[in-house]
Amino acid sequence: MSEPCHDIAHLAHVELLTDRFDESLDFFTRVYGLSVSAQGEGVAYLRGYDDYEFHTLKLTAAGTTGIGHVAYRATSPEALERRVVAIEALGCGIGWIEGDEGHGRAYRFNDPDGHIFEIYYETRRAEPAEGQKSALKNIASRYHGNGVCVRRIDHLNLLAKDVSAIRDWMPKALGSRVTEYIQLDNGRLGGCWFTVNNKTYDVAYTEDHSGMSGRFHHVTYAVDQREDVLRAADIFLENGVHIETGPHKHAVQGTFFLYVYEPAGNRVEVANAGARLILAPDWEPVRWTEADRRKGQAWGLKTIDTFHTHGTPPAPAKH
Amino acid sequence: MSEPCHDIAHLAHVELLTDRFDESLDFFTRVYGLSVSAQGEGVAYLRGYDDYEFHTLKLTAAGTTGIGHVAYRATSPEALERRVVAIEALGCGIGWIEGDEGHGRAYRFNDPDGHIFEIYYETRRAEPAEGQKSALKNIASRYHGNGVCVRRIDHLNLLAKDVSAIRDWMPKALGSRVTEYIQLDNGRLGGCWFTVNNKTYDVAYTEDHSGMSGRFHHVTYAVDQREDVLRAADIFLENGVHIETGPHKHAVQGTFFLYVYEPAGNRVEVANAGARLILAPDWEPVRWTEADRRKGQAWGLKTIDTFHTHGTPPAPAKH
Amino acid sequence: MSEPCHDIAHLAHVELLTDRFDESLDFFTRVYGLSVSAQGEGVAYLRGYDDYEFHTLKLTAAGTTGIGHVAYRATSPEALERRVVAIEALGCGIGWIEGDEGHGRAYRFNDPDGHIFEIYYETRRAEPAEGQKSALKNIASRYHGNGVCVRRIDHLNLLAKDVSAIRDWMPKALGSRVTEYIQLDNGRLGGCWFTVNNKTYDVAYTEDHSGMSGRFHHVTYAVDQREDVLRAADIFLENGVHIETGPHKHAVQGTFFLYVYEPAGNRVEVANAGARLILAPDWEPVRWTEADRRKGQAWGLKTIDTFHTHGTPPAPAKH
Amino acid sequence: MSEPCHDIAHLAHVELLTDRFDESLDFFTRVYGLSVSAQGEGVAYLRGYDDYEFHTLKLTAAGTTGIGHVAYRATSPEALERRVVAIEALGCGIGWIEGDEGHGRAYRFNDPDGHIFEIYYETRRAEPAEGQKSALKNIASRYHGNGVCVRRIDHLNLLAKDVSAIRDWMPKALGSRVTEYIQLDNGRLGGCWFTVNNKTYDVAYTEDHSGMSGRFHHVTYAVDQREDVLRAADIFLENGVHIETGPHKHAVQGTFFLYVYEPAGNRVEVANAGARLILAPDWEPVRWTEADRRKGQAWGLKTIDTFHTHGTPPAPAKH
Repeated sequence: MSEPCHDIAHLAHVELLTDRFDESLDFFTRVYGLSVSAQGEGVAYLRGYDDYEFHTLKLTAAGTTGIGHVAYRATSPEALERRVVAIEALGCGIGWIEGDEGHGRAYRFNDPDGHIFEIYYETRRAEPAEGQKSALKNIASRYHGNGVCVRRIDHLNLLAKDVSAIRDWMPKALGSRVTEYIQLDNGRLGGCWFTVNNKTYDVAYTEDHSGMSGRFHHVTYAVDQREDVLRAADIFLENGVHIETGPHKHAVQGTFFLYVYEPAGNRVEVANAGARLILAPDWEPVRWTEADRRKGQAWGLKTIDTFHTHGTPPAPAKH
Repeated sequence: MSEPCHDIAHLAHVELLTDRFDESLDFFTRVYGLSVSAQGEGVAYLRGYDDYEFHTLKLTAAGTTGIGHVAYRATSPEALERRVVAIEALGCGIGWIEGDEGHGRAYRFNDPDGHIFEIYYETRRAEPAEGQKSALKNIASRYHGNGVCVRRIDHLNLLAKDVSAIRDWMPKALGSRVTEYIQLDNGRLGGCWFTVNNKTYDVAYTEDHSGMSGRFHHVTYAVDQREDVLRAADIFLENGVHIETGPHKHAVQGTFFLYVYEPAGNRVEVANAGARLILAPDWEPVRWTEADRRKGQAWGLKTIDTFHTHGTPPAPAKH
Repeated sequence: MSEPCHDIAHLAHVELLTDRFDESLDFFTRVYGLSVSAQGEGVAYLRGYDDYEFHTLKLTAAGTTGIGHVAYRATSPEALERRVVAIEALGCGIGWIEGDEGHGRAYRFNDPDGHIFEIYYETRRAEPAEGQKSALKNIASRYHGNGVCVRRIDHLNLLAKDVSAIRDWMPKALGSRVTEYIQLDNGRLGGCWFTVNNKTYDVAYTEDHSGMSGRFHHVTYAVDQREDVLRAADIFLENGVHIETGPHKHAVQGTFFLYVYEPAGNRVEVANAGARLILAPDWEPVRWTEADRRKGQAWGLKTIDTFHTHGTPPAPAKH
Repeated sequence: MSEPCHDIAHLAHVELLTDRFDESLDFFTRVYGLSVSAQGEGVAYLRGYDDYEFHTLKLTAAGTTGIGHVAYRATSPEALERRVVAIEALGCGIGWIEGDEGHGRAYRFNDPDGHIFEIYYETRRAEPAEGQKSALKNIASRYHGNGVCVRRIDHLNLLAKDVSAIRDWMPKALGSRVTEYIQLDNGRLGGCWFTVNNKTYDVAYTEDHSGMSGRFHHVTYAVDQREDVLRAADIFLENGVHIETGPHKHAVQGTFFLYVYEPAGNRVEVANAGARLILAPDWEPVRWTEADRRKGQAWGLKTIDTFHTHGTPPAPAKH
C-alpha cells in the first residue's frame, strides 16, 4: 500500500443554488446562524462562527436549486500543483479560474457524475467585524449564539448514478480515503464516505435513482454538542422550517444528525460527531450490507423514504 | 514555508508508572472505564472503548510515579524510517527495541527534558472479547458504559524546564506543528501545544519550576460530550477520587476539562473538545500572554495553584 | 372552582408482572440501573438511585406480563383517610391490605378499567448499603453510574377502553388534575394526562383498542439530562434491548423520550422533562386534536404503529 | 406534625432595582433572553419564554440596586385570605395594594429582615405577540433562542442578619417547608432553603455580615439542561458580562449553577436542577455543617469570597 496523500487539507466551501434567494439567505443567517462575510446582487458569502476562511457557503440566486460547485483547499502551493497534474491525467479537468471573494486562483474539474469541484491554496481569512471578535483568541469569530449557531462546515453529500465510479475516482483526484461504504446485494455501492484528513468524512456520495446527474443531497455544519442539535430542532420547529428526520444517530459513521429543508428545498444538516476521528493511517473501510441497513439507524429509526429520493434540483414527478 | 510533515499519524500510548499498582488499576478500569487488553505481574495494557489499538495506556508497577514512555504511531514503514533518520540527526536517539504486547519494533529517543519517546508502525488491533463487540461496525469495542467510559486517548501533558527547547525540537523530531503557546513576560515559554494531525493538540509541555526533569503533568482521554465530563465528576465524587479542578473550559485550546489524581498521584483528565479541529494547513500559532492568563480559564475560573506545581514524580517538599 | 386537593403526595411504586423473571430482573438492574432493596422467590423490590422510598418498582414473577398494581403515597394519615372515604363513595373500593416490604397498610381500589391502585401513608425509607451512601447528603443513594442509572420513578401509562371515564374518575379518586388530553374527532378521548403535584403528569391513560381491560402501556423513570436519554440509547443498543422508538421529544407534555421493551415485553421508558413543571394552580388543560397529532411528535417523528397497539399483557393476534 | 400547607402555589415575580436601567434592560433581554411584556418610563415587565404569567421580573429604575419586592401567587382566593389572616397574626403585615400590570390586588408584608413580600391570586397570563406563539400548545411562548433564553423563574436568594428568625417565620407566613440548611459551629444558621411546592427551593436566605438589612443576593431562572448553562457561560463571556463563579454543581441542593452580575451589579443566576424534586410529604430537612461546607461545592470548587460578601445594594467599603 502506498502512503496516504496529504495534498488536500480540507473541504473549504460549497456553492448552493437557490430560486428563493431572500428566503434562503434569511434561513441561513437568522435561523441556521451563519454570518455574512460579503453580499451582492443574488450572491452571499457566509461562514460559521469558527470557520477560519472568508466563506464556507456561497449562496447564489439561480433558476433552480442544487449545487454550484464544491471547493477543497490544498495543503500548499506545491500540493495544489501536484493535484492538478493528477486530475488532468484523469481527463476530468476543466481549468483554472481567477478566484473568488474568498480565495485565489482555483483549478476546476468534474467528478464522474458531473458535479463541479475546485481546489485552491491562496485563501482569505474570516474578518470578524469589530463587535464580532471573540473574547477567546483561538476562535475565528465570537460565539454569537444567534439561531442554531453552527461552528464550522463539516461535510456534504452528493448524489451519483454510479457510486463505484466515484469510489475509484475520488482517491485519485483528491487523495481521499474511503472510510465507510454500503455494499448493495446487487453488487453496486449504495453509498461511500470519503475523507482527506482525520475527520471521519468530508464528502459522501449516495446512489441517485432519478436518472439525473450532478445532484445534491445535503450540506452539513458541525456543532460542538449533541445538545446543540436538539436545541436546533426546537429552533427549526419554532421557525416553521421543515424537519425531514432526526435528531437521531446514524449507524454509518455514528453521526448525530438532524435534517431540514431550507426554503428553496435544499437539504441542510446539523450534526455532531462526538470525539470520533479517523486517526489510524491504515484504517480499514467499514462495509455495511443491505442486511445491516435494514436495522435502520443506530437506535432503530427507520430511514425516511424522502431521504432516498429527495435531492436538488428535484427530479420530475413520476406519472 | 515548507510543507507540513505527515510522517507521524497520532499519539499511540503512554506508559504510566505507579507505586500503588492495584489501586491505580482499579481506578483506570472500574472508575475511569478503560478495558484490560492484557495483564501480567505489575503490568496492565489498557484501552478506551473506541481505541483501535491493543493498548493506549500501559500501567507499570514501579517504585515511583510519572511517565515511563510516550509512543506515537508512524503513518507508514517508510515514514517511520524517515523519522528515525531525522531524530538521529538531532542527536537524541536511543535506539530500537523489539516492541511490546501491542506493537512491533519501535525506535526510542529522548526529548530535551529527558522524557522517553518511541515511534513504531506495526501495530496490533484491539481485540474485543466476544461480549464486548459493538452492535455498530465502526466502533473498536462496544460502548460498555462502565465508569466514566472514556472513548479514546486524546493527549498528554509533560513538564519541562525549558519549553522553548521543546518548541524547537518537537517539529524536527515528530514533524509536529505548534498550535498555541504561552509567552511569559520574561520571554520564556510557559507552555506549548503541539499536534501531528488535525487534533488541536496531542501533547502539551508546560514549564517545570521544580528543578527536576522528565516529569509528567497529565494524560487525557476524550469523551464525546461535555455532559460526559459532568457525569464523570459525579462518578469521581462518589468513588472518592480527588478532583483537582473542573469541570470548566480552558481558555487555551477551549478544551472542556476535569482533572483528578489517580490513587498513586498521577494527574488524569477527562476532556471534550467539541467540534474544534485544526484544519488550516497554515494555522498561525495562537499566542497567550501573562495578561491573557490573568483572566483565568475561559469562564473566569482562577487556575488552581497545584496545577502549576503538582507533577509526578512529585518534587521534594520545600523547606 | 374548588381548591386543588393535596391529599396524595406522589406516585409511589408500580408492580410489574413478568413471565421471564430472571431476564427482567437482569434488565432492570444491570441495564436500566435500578438497585435491589430486597429480593425473594419470584419477587424483587427495586429503586432508582434517588428514590427516597424502599422501592418504586416491584417485579413479580407471574404467568403473564402487565401491571400488578399502582401505588400512590398520601400526604398524611388524615389525607389517606379522606381519600378512602372519597373512593368508597365512588363505589370502586377493594379494601385494606396489611402493607408490603416497603410500606404500611394500604387501601386498594379499582379504576374504571379494572387496574388495581393502592394508597398508603406509612413508608420505609431507602436504606443504601454502606458503600452505596452518597458523598452528598441530599441524595437517597449514591450516583452509582451503572447502566442507564435512572434517578427516580416518574410516571406510568395505562391503557383503558374508555379514557373519558378515567378522566371523570381520577380527580375524584386521587384528587388529580388533568394537565393535557387528546380529543379525537369522534368525541372520545384518545389520551389523558394527570398529576397530583407539580410534575406535569404522574399517570397517563391512552385508549385501548384491543377489547381487553386492565392493560399496561409503560412505566417511566426520570434522568437528569437529555444526554442521559441519548446515552441510554447506546446502552440499550449494546445490550441487545429492543428499542421501540426515540429518542425524540413528545409534542404532548414535551417529554424527551426513549421507549424499549424489557425482556418479558413490558414497555419501559427513560425520560427527561427539562425544567417543565405545572406551577399554576389554575392550569388550563391543553387539548390536542387529531389534526395536531397528525403532525407527529414535536420534531415531526411519525408515531410508530406499535405505540398504539402494543400493551401488556399482549392482545391475542388478530386473524 | 400538622399537614403541609398548600395556600401558596409558587414564587411569582421579583422586582429588581437598578441605577443603570438601560444597560440592565439590555442585559435581561438581549443577553439573558427575557421577553418584554410591557415597558414604561423607568420600568419594564419581563418574562421567560415559558413563564405563564405576564411578568416574573419587574425591572425598576432607582437610585440604588437590590430588591423592590418579592411576590408569590396563592392557590385560590380563599387561600389568599387564609394567608393574610396568618400574616397579620404575625404582626408583619403592611396592607393591600391595588395590583400591578401583571396581577390583581395583592397583600404586602415584611419578612424579619425588612424585605417586602406580596401575595395575590388574580393574575394576567403571558400574551405572546403573534409571531411569538409556540408551535407547541403547551408552552407559554415560543422558544425564541435569543441569548441565554431562560425558561422560567426558579428562585431567589435574599440576605438576612438572622437566618434563624427567617426559618421560624417563613413556614408561618407562606406555609413554606425547609428543605436544607447550613448549621454553623456557633449555632447560628448560615443559610436556609424553603419551598412552597415540589421544587427543591423557591427562596434561600443566607447570612448577611454587612450590618445592613433587606439586601438581595441573587435571582435565578431555570433552563432545561446543564448544557444550556454551559452555553450561557459562552454567551456571557462573549458579551462582556462579569462571570462571578461557575458553571459548577452546588453541594447544597445539587443545583448546576452559573452566577453573573448584571450591569448594575445585581447577581443573576442561570441554573438547572435536573430531575430533582421534593416529593416526600415528610421530607426531613438536610443539615450541612461547616465541616461539610469546607469540602467546597459538589465537585470541590472552593466557594469564591465575593459569594459571601457581595449583595445589593452593596455594603459600604470597609476601612
